[in-house]
Amino acid sequence: VAEFITVDNIEDLAAGAAFLGTGGGGDPYIGALLCREALERYGPVRLLPLAEVRDEDALFTTAGMGAPTILLEKLLSLEDADSSVRALERHLGRAATAMIAAEIGGINATLPIAYSAMRGLPLLDADGMGRAFPQLQMCAFNAAEISCAPLSLADEFGNFAIIEADTAHKAEELARSLVVAFGASATMSCYPMTGAQAKVGAVAGSMTAALEIGAAIRERSSDGDPVSRLLDVLRRQPLYGHAYRLFDGKIVELQRDTTRGWVVGTCEMAGLDDTRRCLVKFQNENLSAEIDGVLHAIVPDLITIVDLETASAIPTESLRYGQRVVVVGCSAPRQLRTPRCLDLMGPAAFGLHQQYQKIEHLALELNQQLGVPDASELTQRETN
Amino acid sequence: VAEFITVDNIEDLAAGAAFLGTGGGGDPYIGALLCREALERYGPVRLLPLAEVRDEDALFTTAGMGAPTILLEKLLSLEDADSSVRALERHLGRAATAMIAAEIGGINATLPIAYSAMRGLPLLDADGMGRAFPQLQMCAFNAAEISCAPLSLADEFGNFAIIEADTAHKAEELARSLVVAFGASATMSCYPMTGAQAKVGAVAGSMTAALEIGAAIRERSSDGDPVSRLLDVLRRQPLYGHAYRLFDGKIVELQRDTTRGWVVGTCEMAGLDDTRRCLVKFQNENLSAEIDGVLHAIVPDLITIVDLETASAIPTESLRYGQRVVVVGCSAPRQLRTPRCLDLMGPAAFGLHQQYQKIEHLALELNQQLGVPDASELTQRETN
Repeated sequence: VAEFITVDNIEDLAAGAAFLGTGGGGDPYIGALLCREALERYGPVRLLPLAEVRDEDALFTTAGMGAPTILLEKLLSLEDADSSVRALERHLGRAATAMIAAEIGGINATLPIAYSAMRGLPLLDADGMGRAFPQLQMCAFNAAEISCAPLSLADEFGNFAIIEADTAHKAEELARSLVVAFGASATMSCYPMTGAQAKVGAVAGSMTAALEIGAAIRERSSDGDPVSRLLDVLRRQPLYGHAYRLFDGKIVELQRDTTRGWVVGTCEMAGLDDTRRCLVKFQNENLSAEIDGVLHAIVPDLITIVDLETASAIPTESLRYGQRVVVVGCSAPRQLRTPRCLDLMGPAAFGLHQQYQKIEHLALELNQQLGVPDASELTQRETN
Repeated sequence: VAEFITVDNIEDLAAGAAFLGTGGGGDPYIGALLCREALERYGPVRLLPLAEVRDEDALFTTAGMGAPTILLEKLLSLEDADSSVRALERHLGRAATAMIAAEIGGINATLPIAYSAMRGLPLLDADGMGRAFPQLQMCAFNAAEISCAPLSLADEFGNFAIIEADTAHKAEELARSLVVAFGASATMSCYPMTGAQAKVGAVAGSMTAALEIGAAIRERSSDGDPVSRLLDVLRRQPLYGHAYRLFDGKIVELQRDTTRGWVVGTCEMAGLDDTRRCLVKFQNENLSAEIDGVLHAIVPDLITIVDLETASAIPTESLRYGQRVVVVGCSAPRQLRTPRCLDLMGPAAFGLHQQYQKIEHLALELNQQLGVPDASELTQRETN
């Protein structure tokens, strides 16, 4: 397990975070670029295991909020991130002793790394989701009753806001309105917490998971298919475990609307070797995967569209007509599958009509229907 | 000149503020009700002449933001006002030593009175507009380079926000977005300032003016027409001076849309004794008055639609089909007629295509065209 994030492993982390971002969170290479500069300038960032955080530590998050498309155009800067974190520190009258990522997906996994480097602070090997989600209340911190507010938002012109809200839903609503007024993107710091709170609410080990997943994607091994290698590594992850190659195909339909600070739409793929069709719905992040109308995976389980040749995750805004891709699904971290979390970030929270079913149950059921003999391996994995 | 606002003169002040609100700012009687309760409970509020404020005084405003229609439905409370003022005091690390009204129109003239009573603070005999305007940057404070931010916004559920913005326009944009997210109305505190700043930026004497105008409207004198009495008092006001009975008519057309926290629309009247038509445009406040297509008054000069029988101002949201009304126009305080203020709150700021012309010039011109012999009185009044 890595003890530091350095210029040598930052690309791995960014590639892993892009996978865990399940389509959301923007281009990982832009995030990696920002990190590389910061790590070169300020030195490595120490990864602090969740178990080693002190109860009295003051943890702060830093993240971009807004449609990834716009975040990319405006390119988050460390100065903007600093503006929002410092505003929240002043408001609370306490300074950060460590940073924690709100989500392990996309640039919101990498921004805290660059920022920790600049501030010379350790970064927790943990986050608030074990993946990425488009709204503030969709967070394990919230499920653990850690308050999303006070939160701060800042733009690149020195404008900022502090919001106090009695629920994370209200914080999301108020912050979203401001993000739109800030020009559809802003940096923010939310869920300020103590070490003691993080131990209860955070998803442990997700930075390490991103590093390992990214390494699997980046390795140029000679032994065949990169997607199989990715699946093998996912299956060894304590946070994920159940991983499936859901669909091989090429993109034949794309619908994307940028609205209220999100990218909302669908991606449809046609099978490479068959006539099947796969439909992935997204709101920044991918929400569900259906093949010929049959559900194969649904949020909060992870659905990522990866490049067929490289296994690199393709962010929602980089999907292109004709791309040859694989739809990979894997199980969500255990703590996202509780009833409380399913209320916050299950299908109904996104307006989907399907009930949540664990990806491994869906797979088992489908294999049984198809009479696939070797379903035993799936049954053995029923430990999550 | 009154030294205190008490239960005995609060109705006068509210009636005067309704006139100076030029259609915006909600029902004055609701504002008066809130004040009456507070004045009975906490005692009178001392009116502090602008010249007597100490340079080091910490002045805070309190106001409702949002469409008057909604403000009326939700009914601002002193607790909500307190929530936003206290949030700003905490943010700035200093406590209010006196209050100042942001605008002298409608409930935003009366809310500071009730709040000053509750806090036991003096209230300045002054405000930021000498009338009312629908946006934060449309303020003499802004023209005097007093910063609108930091400002605070609060709703009735304990949610609040602090906004820092480098311009009043940006503050307006950010605050407006939040007001919509807060449910189309909120209490706010903006333009925190010192006594020294107020002496430069505030419109002096406007609370006294509201008291005198309100007394003229309320008096039940026997000698004839209440609108003539109102005009007489307006003409004696150092802040206003030029006052005109622009049109007598009944309302024949009304268009009102509530959008982005404003009430936007038009009111058309038909002459009582002739076939002329008068059109008044508004965005919360009345913006222009045209008779048969000819401009008679335009913002920032004041245009108020009053009841024909009582001379009481009719707020935009209380205009009704068939009402018999008089359109009264009067000159804006001198400091609103500077080029800087005309940029901020002249016709172009509201998307009107007409150039600003002083109401007394328009009247003179029209009278000359009509060959009215007695235009000399108008010429004599050219002192503003």
